[in-house]
Amino acid sequence: MSARARARVVIVGGGFGGLAAAKVLRRAPVEVTLVDRTNHHLFQPLLYQVATAGLAPGDIASPIRQILRAQKNATVMMAEATGVDLAGRALEIDVAERGAVRLAYDYLVLATGVTQSYFGRDDFARFAPGLKTLEDATSVRARILGAFERAETQEQPESRRDLLTVVLVGAGPTGVEMAGAAAELARATLAQDFRRVDPRSARIVLVEAGPRILPTFDERLARRAHERLVRMGVEIRTGRPVEAIDAGGVAVGGERIEAGVVLWTAGVRPSPVAAWLGAATDRAGRVRVEPDLSVPGHPEVFVVGDVAAREQDGRPLPGVAQVAIQGGRHVGRAIARRVAGRPALAPFRYRDKGNLAVVGRNYAVLELGRLRLAGFPAWLIWAFVHIRFLAEFNNKLLVFTQWVWSYFTWQRGSRLILGRH
Amino acid sequence: MSARARARVVIVGGGFGGLAAAKVLRRAPVEVTLVDRTNHHLFQPLLYQVATAGLAPGDIASPIRQILRAQKNATVMMAEATGVDLAGRALEIDVAERGAVRLAYDYLVLATGVTQSYFGRDDFARFAPGLKTLEDATSVRARILGAFERAETQEQPESRRDLLTVVLVGAGPTGVEMAGAAAELARATLAQDFRRVDPRSARIVLVEAGPRILPTFDERLARRAHERLVRMGVEIRTGRPVEAIDAGGVAVGGERIEAGVVLWTAGVRPSPVAAWLGAATDRAGRVRVEPDLSVPGHPEVFVVGDVAAREQDGRPLPGVAQVAIQGGRHVGRAIARRVAGRPALAPFRYRDKGNLAVVGRNYAVLELGRLRLAGFPAWLIWAFVHIRFLAEFNNKLLVFTQWVWSYFTWQRGSRLILGRH
Repeated sequence: MSARARARVVIVGGGFGGLAAAKVLRRAPVEVTLVDRTNHHLFQPLLYQVATAGLAPGDIASPIRQILRAQKNATVMMAEATGVDLAGRALEIDVAERGAVRLAYDYLVLATGVTQSYFGRDDFARFAPGLKTLEDATSVRARILGAFERAETQEQPESRRDLLTVVLVGAGPTGVEMAGAAAELARATLAQDFRRVDPRSARIVLVEAGPRILPTFDERLARRAHERLVRMGVEIRTGRPVEAIDAGGVAVGGERIEAGVVLWTAGVRPSPVAAWLGAATDRAGRVRVEPDLSVPGHPEVFVVGDVAAREQDGRPLPGVAQVAIQGGRHVGRAIARRVAGRPALAPFRYRDKGNLAVVGRNYAVLELGRLRLAGFPAWLIWAFVHIRFLAEFNNKLLVFTQWVWSYFTWQRGSRLILGRH
Repeated sequence: MSARARARVVIVGGGFGGLAAAKVLRRAPVEVTLVDRTNHHLFQPLLYQVATAGLAPGDIASPIRQILRAQKNATVMMAEATGVDLAGRALEIDVAERGAVRLAYDYLVLATGVTQSYFGRDDFARFAPGLKTLEDATSVRARILGAFERAETQEQPESRRDLLTVVLVGAGPTGVEMAGAAAELARATLAQDFRRVDPRSARIVLVEAGPRILPTFDERLARRAHERLVRMGVEIRTGRPVEAIDAGGVAVGGERIEAGVVLWTAGVRPSPVAAWLGAATDRAGRVRVEPDLSVPGHPEVFVVGDVAAREQDGRPLPGVAQVAIQGGRHVGRAIARRVAGRPALAPFRYRDKGNLAVVGRNYAVLELGRLRLAGFPAWLIWAFVHIRFLAEFNNKLLVFTQWVWSYFTWQRGSRLILGRH
């Protein structure tokens, strides 16, 4: 501790962006406080495997304070952020038992991510959960496994067929990965487990309002993924918006599809950071930030990850883990330099580490710079990269153990229906 | 399928007893239907490890239909049993979408287990959950980890100290195992993870109305376990009943203990099988059964496991996994013989496989016949036996992986707070 009080850095969000910022500051003469409403960092790219019973919730989540255990200048608070007092330089949080509390900051990093957006149709949420949290994933898992259980107890063939239909709305990477995993769950894992229904007859329907699946990917790669999904028995409906969702199914492009499970991954909505700051946003509601990721007029406040709007080479930065990680690191370094009185960093520049989506076992599509890969080699890279970026050693160990076991047995280790859904 | 219709065996409960009965019948010319309200078989002896974040829920649970996948004469139904029509030989169940359904049987096996009993003080349940289901375990885990999180955000030292107090009511094996595991969680796993509170200062208080802990164990062994717990920093209050439990703590033997977490393992209550059957019970409400475990007057209806009351050598059979497993096997064999027209089996006789309780890492107490063991060798036997009896290979693999990792790192792999508690 120097004679002068150390700078207080408050970070909101323990996702990829917030955690990267905190870690970069581990040797800086600052006091870091990381606030998150949950106690865990979540590896969102593998959520779809929890939703399809391949991995357990704990396999892809680590306590934030366990990750920052050895970083003595970091304090973790489990609390809900509710606002920012820009003039008074304080984050407003809601603390159990104490109520509203103000956390004073010298630097503030907002990395609060996004939630599912239903484009104004929030009434869909009840029938079609999203896939952003562990609770979402265990709820989707319970709905899928529960639909098979209910089908097994029905007398009427039509009821069984309806229950064995899974509709996935939105064909971005999550929708595509869910479709592949759900098809394997039905066709392989569950195939021998039922007596009255044949899980292999389950319908998996992937619905996309846009003209093709994986809109952010190269068109030829998307076509390869499309063909692969069709070979796996997935029905794909592109160019058709969803008109209605209720307890019994969905209406899409004039067609009614009765379904036991509907999942929504069609859109995201930024958390309300812009409203806290009174800041300008892009059309999606993300905060427009300066080249150093600070908020215009407030060089001490930064926004990173999915909630920040920033263009690079004329294109908006995508809402992926790498943008958040690199943004968090950049902001952490910028703060460390300013605290040390050293000149500012060059503006933030995202280095594209590539785009990956997995389509069932053994198959993935990958684009990296000019490289385009589809098939088993891309899948191997996918598996390696995902194990590599899991936060803690025990997560790596558990995920690796489960994957090896599942790969050879076609079984899935986490087929639990918990709670009431 | 023989010319004559196969005998229908309906089993209620996918715990140790029901599953053992189903498996024994795998080659018998019968149609087995196993009904359970959950989709999984739960390895209850390790629930305390889920509640203390050492294991994940999926590690100790397997889908019942996955376990019985290869047994072609077995059908699994996820449904709630609501009653028995003894005269009409039908089990009454509640099925999703269809409502009340009757399942006709030729033989009925009731293996529905027990729930927590609060001895008429059901108002305690809200503040002091039990430990019988996976939902209980994840709820207790969230309460324990949440209390540490809340303590970290408090200003007042008294609030912190109160939140860091865990009271365990009931010092049977579950209470003792919880006390040891909670002490290790606080003293080792969490020790480095907080900045404002010292988890090592947490109080773990084990409360027992009877004169000593582990009342079903040999007195000298119980004394060894008692001493071990005290060395681990657990406070033990025996001979004092709990008078009140509320949101802030417990009153026990005239003393008020403020606590952040209270857990209740002091008693069990059988599921309402006796009421379904109109059968005679013992004082605890368990159904008095014949020497072959059938219900008096109904040789086609059997009760096994914790819900059955049976004496052997003048002592009631205990509510442990081995009594359920051996009872389930006995009943399955008895049914197979009757279906085959062969003479009845000798009366059921429980073979005591020993009594084990673990007291933190490296220490367990074991009694088997005249053998008494306390310490590391008993702990090794405990670990071996528990891995041995886990249902599926992937459970064995996951539990073993976690245990080895935890043993060497003192970390716990499943520190998640999920949902709202």
